[in-house]
Amino acid sequence: MAFTRRELITRIAAVGGYSAAVGALGALGLTPQAVAASFKPLQLGSSGKGKNVVIVGAGISGLVSAYELRKAGFNVTILEARERVGGRNWTLRRGTQVDFDDGVSQTVDFDEGHFFNAGPARIPSHHQTILGYCRELGVELQVLVNSSRNALALPDPSKPAFQLRQAVNDTRGQLSELLARTVSRKALDQDLSVDDRKALLNFLKVYGDLNADFQYKGSVRSGYTRVPGAGDQTGVTRAPLELQTLLNPKLWGALVFDEIPEFSSTMFQPVGGMDRIPYAFYDKLKDAVRFNAEVSDIQTSESGSRITYRDRKTGKTQTLSADYAVVTVPLPLLAKLPSNFSPPFKQAILSAQSDQANKVAWQSPRFWETDFNIYGGLSYLDHEVKGLWYPSDRLNSAQGILVAAYNTSESAQAFSQKSIAEQFASSRQAVELLHPGHSAQLQKPVAINWAKVPFSKGPWIVNDEVGESAYQILNEPQGRTYLASDALAHGGVGIWQNSAADSARRIVGLIGRHAERTQSGVAA
Amino acid sequence: MAFTRRELITRIAAVGGYSAAVGALGALGLTPQAVAASFKPLQLGSSGKGKNVVIVGAGISGLVSAYELRKAGFNVTILEARERVGGRNWTLRRGTQVDFDDGVSQTVDFDEGHFFNAGPARIPSHHQTILGYCRELGVELQVLVNSSRNALALPDPSKPAFQLRQAVNDTRGQLSELLARTVSRKALDQDLSVDDRKALLNFLKVYGDLNADFQYKGSVRSGYTRVPGAGDQTGVTRAPLELQTLLNPKLWGALVFDEIPEFSSTMFQPVGGMDRIPYAFYDKLKDAVRFNAEVSDIQTSESGSRITYRDRKTGKTQTLSADYAVVTVPLPLLAKLPSNFSPPFKQAILSAQSDQANKVAWQSPRFWETDFNIYGGLSYLDHEVKGLWYPSDRLNSAQGILVAAYNTSESAQAFSQKSIAEQFASSRQAVELLHPGHSAQLQKPVAINWAKVPFSKGPWIVNDEVGESAYQILNEPQGRTYLASDALAHGGVGIWQNSAADSARRIVGLIGRHAERTQSGVAA
Repeated sequence: MAFTRRELITRIAAVGGYSAAVGALGALGLTPQAVAASFKPLQLGSSGKGKNVVIVGAGISGLVSAYELRKAGFNVTILEARERVGGRNWTLRRGTQVDFDDGVSQTVDFDEGHFFNAGPARIPSHHQTILGYCRELGVELQVLVNSSRNALALPDPSKPAFQLRQAVNDTRGQLSELLARTVSRKALDQDLSVDDRKALLNFLKVYGDLNADFQYKGSVRSGYTRVPGAGDQTGVTRAPLELQTLLNPKLWGALVFDEIPEFSSTMFQPVGGMDRIPYAFYDKLKDAVRFNAEVSDIQTSESGSRITYRDRKTGKTQTLSADYAVVTVPLPLLAKLPSNFSPPFKQAILSAQSDQANKVAWQSPRFWETDFNIYGGLSYLDHEVKGLWYPSDRLNSAQGILVAAYNTSESAQAFSQKSIAEQFASSRQAVELLHPGHSAQLQKPVAINWAKVPFSKGPWIVNDEVGESAYQILNEPQGRTYLASDALAHGGVGIWQNSAADSARRIVGLIGRHAERTQSGVAA
Repeated sequence: MAFTRRELITRIAAVGGYSAAVGALGALGLTPQAVAASFKPLQLGSSGKGKNVVIVGAGISGLVSAYELRKAGFNVTILEARERVGGRNWTLRRGTQVDFDDGVSQTVDFDEGHFFNAGPARIPSHHQTILGYCRELGVELQVLVNSSRNALALPDPSKPAFQLRQAVNDTRGQLSELLARTVSRKALDQDLSVDDRKALLNFLKVYGDLNADFQYKGSVRSGYTRVPGAGDQTGVTRAPLELQTLLNPKLWGALVFDEIPEFSSTMFQPVGGMDRIPYAFYDKLKDAVRFNAEVSDIQTSESGSRITYRDRKTGKTQTLSADYAVVTVPLPLLAKLPSNFSPPFKQAILSAQSDQANKVAWQSPRFWETDFNIYGGLSYLDHEVKGLWYPSDRLNSAQGILVAAYNTSESAQAFSQKSIAEQFASSRQAVELLHPGHSAQLQKPVAINWAKVPFSKGPWIVNDEVGESAYQILNEPQGRTYLASDALAHGGVGIWQNSAADSARRIVGLIGRHAERTQSGVAA
């Protein structure tokens, strides 16, 4: 019952009331003092001793599976079609080759030390599975700033952009004034006691920063037009945005986005690039990974699995027999692979469709920091690129990587049909809209169209998770073959590495317990 | 006209409507697209060639003065009473000796690599003077998380604590429901057109996450009681806090605090400790600093300044004559120094009174991260310690420094009169209130009572800046002697290193131009 990511912000703005879709409401009553995720080791003993597992795919779910299965004593082999680990967790740096399946190639030209997380780029605080692995494997993290109050909103390109702090705080001010007015008009006398009405008015004055007459005339919270300084440089605050400006639905996504648990402070990224995570797993699994191994057939039975793959370098085909297989191929690609899966299982796989997503990144002097005081976070604009995403690493330094397009679903489909040059031009135009005069500073662009990336062919599946009936079916093994995927675990709002890791840990548990049962059976 | 920091949060909650006190309201009209602070070099040429300046105090204002004056060709000497630079910018590490003037001594016992910023601990995004110096001097910054939505509020210790995300989003939900109700009761028909009312209702549905009947029944934004995961682990959201809970004035500070420009995202700290900033200046000024030099007399005239100091090591007294002097001694301490300042100037100095502030810090395993998913930010509670402040460095690692008391003004005065052991006990009690069962993990405490720190004797002055008439007087030189201080520049909300740096740059400009005029005068 996951919320769909499909045009997340647009949907939030258009539909609202999405909470019921994300999760059941907790029972009424006292709120527990602390409800938090926690990371605990799987306790599988050495159930895997003497058993082999073939794992298809070295993305997060494949790597977590291999890492945990090895801990439990299994012999693991990972077949990975690419020449790198990580799957969609892909960090681009100087020299990275980006080859689309339509023949277009780009070579990343950033200066040394800069990176661009083309896939996942943020980790929420409650994603303790992935954070737990970062602790266990020593992956150093830094804060990913997902929300800067100095970032900009441009819901209507015919008017000036404004800071998010204005949107957030002028909204609070305007709504507080309206509500205070209705209280004094006795519109809530039937709902609230005299004391509660008095308390509410006092509250609104503070919450909305209203004046003595309960009017909103602007707030320092909405920022300065002149910052306070030495001598006679007193601070000057802003005139408030009008209610009508705030009622533009194109603004609402920006008001809501960073309050969603999966997108609110504190968020993280690994220092140096998101792929530090898969490579930390790889360090423990180097001997088990076969690169360029493109799987071509999956046969499963109650006694084992047989995986056939082609070595993309030599062209040779080989078949591995194992006690178990874990398959992490994106479901829409798995649908195209020959297998002896049951018809309902195949049908369930077919229910998953690839979504679309694109990003465009540039190297640039950090004008957004020096000239706009924006450090990390996102700006939102009514433009096909959807938003600008400012870097959180090396803050306050000279150069940085600006992500100046991140669109998904319908708008992504149209965008990815443009030529790369047109995508760059569109991205540059959006930067110019928010940061007039600065788009000329953008250099060394690279575009990612996930629909065109071989072995991914999409950023995630439509609706993030497979539908409920497919979810039940695909979370059960076919013979000795198990699927693991971000699409096969509940992820809340959005699509997450944590879900891939959770899915992997679950099937590792299933395999471990199966192996234990089988062993005891043999011993008995 | 600065807002007073005196019990900042309490005051916000009690008074509200403080914006007018911070700055004049900007003129009505279109909001400029981007209003931001920027950092530009002072253009003083070599106006100081052949001139000497004595600078009293190696805090931020003294160091900035010396650094900029040297750039302009002046010969600079800094007299610093302590054996370190930084003044109130003081980072405590393993082995740091904390000697109060009441004879109490503590030696910091943290493990190597940990630090505690006893004084300033955060830098806002628009503080481009201090950020500019960090760029210029190569001080590496990291994000200071000033707000985590997972941090806790405990406005009423007889009830359970709740996450700030609940406070923020349940407030939005409850207010949106109330306002929607009044709209449907036609309470705003006289204010809003039919279209605006319709737009407002649509807005409230999204903004407050209301259901189809415009009721607030909780929101995923307020967090999960069970996080989404693999298998049948669907997300479960929380029952909303009641309006009465939100109307408790002791909660309001937490709702407002991180929306103030000086306290909102993105904030910074130097990697490794705040004193990386003064030490970066010191690297450029080593030869100019005389430590243990306690100034005992200031004589100023139209032709120069004479500063007498005692070497605290040798006991010897010495007098330096210079073309100019810059005095950065905290005003309440300056009031006690003999000088030939004019009576109105002395009276203006006397108007500045020291405020109070205390912090208690502990080393501990990061239970707030692993068990509460709190990474950085502050928790607020109705207790004399006022709040817990979680570390922003080395996130997701094993051990960290938890600041488990930061109180100011009246509550600070009472707190600092307790013994150190009592202060530790109080701090531990507050941790136990928010994190039951975990206070036993706290180790290696250290308490800072700023009123007892020699050569500071307070964290800042009451009201942050001196009052308006004293501000005018003290910002003009006495003969060839100039004052620089955080108390002598406008700082917005709170007290800031940026103000000290701004004040210093202003008087460097005055001195540079005076020197130029004098030179031309001589040449003419």
